[in-house]
Amino acid sequence: MTSERTAEWADRAAAEAPADRQPGRPSPEQQVLHRIERARRRRPTVRESRITLAHGAGGKASRTLVEAVFVEAFRNPILETLDDAAVLAVAGGRLAFTTDSYVVSPLFFPGGDIGDLAVNGTVNDLAVSGARPLYLAAGFILEEGFPVADLLRITASMAAAAQRADVRVVTGDTKVVQRGRGDGCYVTTTGVGVLERPVTLGAAHVRPGDAVVVSGPIGDHGVTVMLARGELDIEADISSDTAPLHGLVSALLDAAPGVRLLRDATRGGVATVLNEVARAAGVAVVVDEAAVPVRPAVTGACELLGIDPLYVACEGRFVAVVDGAQAQAAVAALRDHPLGADASVIGHVAADPAGLVLLRTAFGGTRVVDMLVGDPLPRIC
Amino acid sequence: MTSERTAEWADRAAAEAPADRQPGRPSPEQQVLHRIERARRRRPTVRESRITLAHGAGGKASRTLVEAVFVEAFRNPILETLDDAAVLAVAGGRLAFTTDSYVVSPLFFPGGDIGDLAVNGTVNDLAVSGARPLYLAAGFILEEGFPVADLLRITASMAAAAQRADVRVVTGDTKVVQRGRGDGCYVTTTGVGVLERPVTLGAAHVRPGDAVVVSGPIGDHGVTVMLARGELDIEADISSDTAPLHGLVSALLDAAPGVRLLRDATRGGVATVLNEVARAAGVAVVVDEAAVPVRPAVTGACELLGIDPLYVACEGRFVAVVDGAQAQAAVAALRDHPLGADASVIGHVAADPAGLVLLRTAFGGTRVVDMLVGDPLPRIC
Repeated sequence: MTSERTAEWADRAAAEAPADRQPGRPSPEQQVLHRIERARRRRPTVRESRITLAHGAGGKASRTLVEAVFVEAFRNPILETLDDAAVLAVAGGRLAFTTDSYVVSPLFFPGGDIGDLAVNGTVNDLAVSGARPLYLAAGFILEEGFPVADLLRITASMAAAAQRADVRVVTGDTKVVQRGRGDGCYVTTTGVGVLERPVTLGAAHVRPGDAVVVSGPIGDHGVTVMLARGELDIEADISSDTAPLHGLVSALLDAAPGVRLLRDATRGGVATVLNEVARAAGVAVVVDEAAVPVRPAVTGACELLGIDPLYVACEGRFVAVVDGAQAQAAVAALRDHPLGADASVIGHVAADPAGLVLLRTAFGGTRVVDMLVGDPLPRIC
Repeated sequence: MTSERTAEWADRAAAEAPADRQPGRPSPEQQVLHRIERARRRRPTVRESRITLAHGAGGKASRTLVEAVFVEAFRNPILETLDDAAVLAVAGGRLAFTTDSYVVSPLFFPGGDIGDLAVNGTVNDLAVSGARPLYLAAGFILEEGFPVADLLRITASMAAAAQRADVRVVTGDTKVVQRGRGDGCYVTTTGVGVLERPVTLGAAHVRPGDAVVVSGPIGDHGVTVMLARGELDIEADISSDTAPLHGLVSALLDAAPGVRLLRDATRGGVATVLNEVARAAGVAVVVDEAAVPVRPAVTGACELLGIDPLYVACEGRFVAVVDGAQAQAAVAALRDHPLGADASVIGHVAADPAGLVLLRTAFGGTRVVDMLVGDPLPRIC
């Protein structure tokens, strides 16, 4: 993974830096960081001639595809924020509007299925934009031969999730494709919510000194789905964290008006969210590895899979950037809610090196946590 | 097709009816119609254990799936109208909200591609609800290996269609599935519009004496896509009618305030729309076959394919039910617009037989036009 390679370069550059280097000349470490920064500022182009799984993984390739293809084609100020939900001025009010397609495999897994995932995921994109979720649209792409009993199970689970999140599915569509042109059932949910609070959340409000908070243990969903595929001979007592987060968000916003930004940590995990924040806000995010809540079963599975839990998808956790002075109040409010019992401050925002996420490892070192390259966990949501 | 079989029964029943039957006893024709009606009122259940292509065709099986699975699971008054768009009371205004997944094969065809289809289709669902289309969300499900050049072509075409329809794509999502789990590119577009006019359109307003209007020649889109597959050795100079209809709808509503209902005639064609209207309004719809505008190339291709143009999808035509007294004004207003040049009155609404669509054929006979059974044209949109 490039993140590791970048970290290696930076480590090596730092190690090779002579203690007596001339003032004014950038250190090798600074040069490496400068090259990374320059590469990031380049106008994005998709180099591949064909779509790869990495383009759907939420990391570097996804980002490039979105910027080079979709933002280029549809360019407008609302889309260009690339927030979890678009904020629309409609009929005298502010609406949040968001869409997500769900292609998780398998369709059913411990703790959930594609149905509640599709409801909760879209509810959460609305919630982290500060909106109260109201209505959902649901589009189904079914594969010929898909068992009707499975569809009934999925819709029952969507209905239960919608009730729990207090939203209504008000419109929908169904298409059927021939055998071998789908994978049972894909669901696209689109949500509308209303912004009732005066808050404006976003990377523009993030500043050095802010605290970085996660609302609970990370990686449960991604590891659960990976294990549910049965391709690995690992058994772990773990289930998806899929849950609607609007209540938890509401509790947080009541307790800490100094919340700068909220993002749910789905595809690409917490590391991807933090990279997007660091880049968009032009700040550094410094994470303390020892402070990141990860269940032992997730840590164990990730070690066997050779992946970093920071990149693993959650479906019921968010990252909050909060005024440093309100960090403890924020965590206390989250911990008072059943879905935020293990909320923790995992790091802080610094001025430099702008655009990067640094991890202070348990062994006392520091490495750059870059955007994900490739797709270690395809079709996790 | 059951529509033909039903017509046969009815014809046979009528032929067998003795002229001197006892008063008070239902005629055999009435008994047939009664049985059809009784079957229609039955609580819907999906009899098949697996999804078939017919469940996505927009006809009888689609209807049963929607009623037995989706409406049952998500039951609420907004969804239960089963209109093209849900009407939401949000922030003091009335919003229209609609979603459609597009799985058309091939992706590119004369006159359009999946991109402009996905924009126009959703714009039209908003337009026929009387709304001004404002914003779109776009979800892409891409198959690993899909050419990036094709994706760029699709997004360029979406952007052009969005500009033409004066809507903005403000949010989106991309997922990638493995080779053999998709078919290049599926697009789900969800639209939000605002209801600015005081009109309320819907089957509840339809009454005997109303005129039935189509906005142009029918079946162009479905036949074009079918021929573009190249499976048939037919050449025809024909292209898709895909177009945004909000301007045409606006012109119609300005000219004829007595518009009762508008529906775009996509999957299942004009026959399906009329059946849904007849059933929802509890009226009969009587269509004059000779008055239905169909291009000769479409008639010819349909004869070779053995399908009735009344069931073939359009992507740029709507059906309007209009106060009979305003029918000529409505048609004149439509014909003044480039997208309504061949608009025509094709029939009228009658009180009986409630729930049925009758076709007065060019040969002077009358037959029942039932909901479509099976899927003669899979993946047309």
